[in-house]
Amino acid sequence: MDGETRAEILDATNRALCEHGYAGLTVQRIADESSMTSAAIHYHFDTKEELLNAFLDDLIERFESKLPCGAADPRTRLDGVLDAVFSPKDPDSDGFPVAIMELKAQAPYHELFRERFLDFDGVMRGVVADIVRDGVAAGHFDEADPEEIARLITTMSNGAHARAVALDEHPAETRRVVEDALELHLGWTPGEGADE
Amino acid sequence: MDGETRAEILDATNRALCEHGYAGLTVQRIADESSMTSAAIHYHFDTKEELLNAFLDDLIERFESKLPCGAADPRTRLDGVLDAVFSPKDPDSDGFPVAIMELKAQAPYHELFRERFLDFDGVMRGVVADIVRDGVAAGHFDEADPEEIARLITTMSNGAHARAVALDEHPAETRRVVEDALELHLGWTPGEGADE
Repeated sequence: MDGETRAEILDATNRALCEHGYAGLTVQRIADESSMTSAAIHYHFDTKEELLNAFLDDLIERFESKLPCGAADPRTRLDGVLDAVFSPKDPDSDGFPVAIMELKAQAPYHELFRERFLDFDGVMRGVVADIVRDGVAAGHFDEADPEEIARLITTMSNGAHARAVALDEHPAETRRVVEDALELHLGWTPGEGADE
Repeated sequence: MDGETRAEILDATNRALCEHGYAGLTVQRIADESSMTSAAIHYHFDTKEELLNAFLDDLIERFESKLPCGAADPRTRLDGVLDAVFSPKDPDSDGFPVAIMELKAQAPYHELFRERFLDFDGVMRGVVADIVRDGVAAGHFDEADPEEIARLITTMSNGAHARAVALDEHPAETRRVVEDALELHLGWTPGEGADE
């Protein structure tokens, strides 16, 4: 399958998932959101589970593409992570956080989904830990355990996601608490430093 | 409806929800888990949504009953909150966190569920904020914003829940990070103080 076909199928999956939810997702509904037939989609993905596995894989790449590059100042990179994980809901894809929440609830029954969420978690924690390590080495941050800061930010981001879906709460509420905790842990005020 | 009938229906709802999930939950399946007929259950609860609303209401009471009483030392009370929110999964109700996760994903479509989750969140944050206020007043904790500490613990608990379901991670991983953050925010080491 070429990259364009894959991107079209995954975009259509995103739209169908936002609109119909996990339980209502069918290959026919994905086809309805694309220019392809359901037979053509089935040709590339045998099952709905395989398709959603590819969709979750794609999420990781999209997350990584939102981050500032590894050569930037660690403070700029950490601000970039906060922007990426505590961003407001995109009004065009209102159902997206709900769909991801449903897929998380399906993880105990679908080993492939669980693996993708573990991959995503590993990537996010790895990115943060590297930044903290670099920032401590460069003297921008106080001495801190990079893995622990990574776990703090990632778990708060998981919490913000659940709160957006269950409580309709804006992720900025969580971001503020994370920023204050980072000040105590790293002796660094988010938003300050790199660009001064 | 007397308290015993209500308790029997809600216990049966818990078991049916753990076993069949939200999508597979029917009043018949709840009846199968109890000594009652589905007609008898329908007599007390018109719809599945009303029943689940009562079930979520009951959760709040069960959470409050797990906490040490308000007269205890604030350090004992805060330890009690950490025990209650970061407790390991009960092996007898393995499906319970998954079922709650599914109900959270349903909150955008069911105003009653959203209200119950907001209630629960308000209770949990209120309990923590009161403890922090008391502990600061008594000189056990450093000066800190009680609402912010409440938000930190509650959001981390939401994150630990999502991670238990999606990643099969033990909540102790999150508790450790919360305890270290509390040391920085409150100048208090969880587990120490009150009983020495």
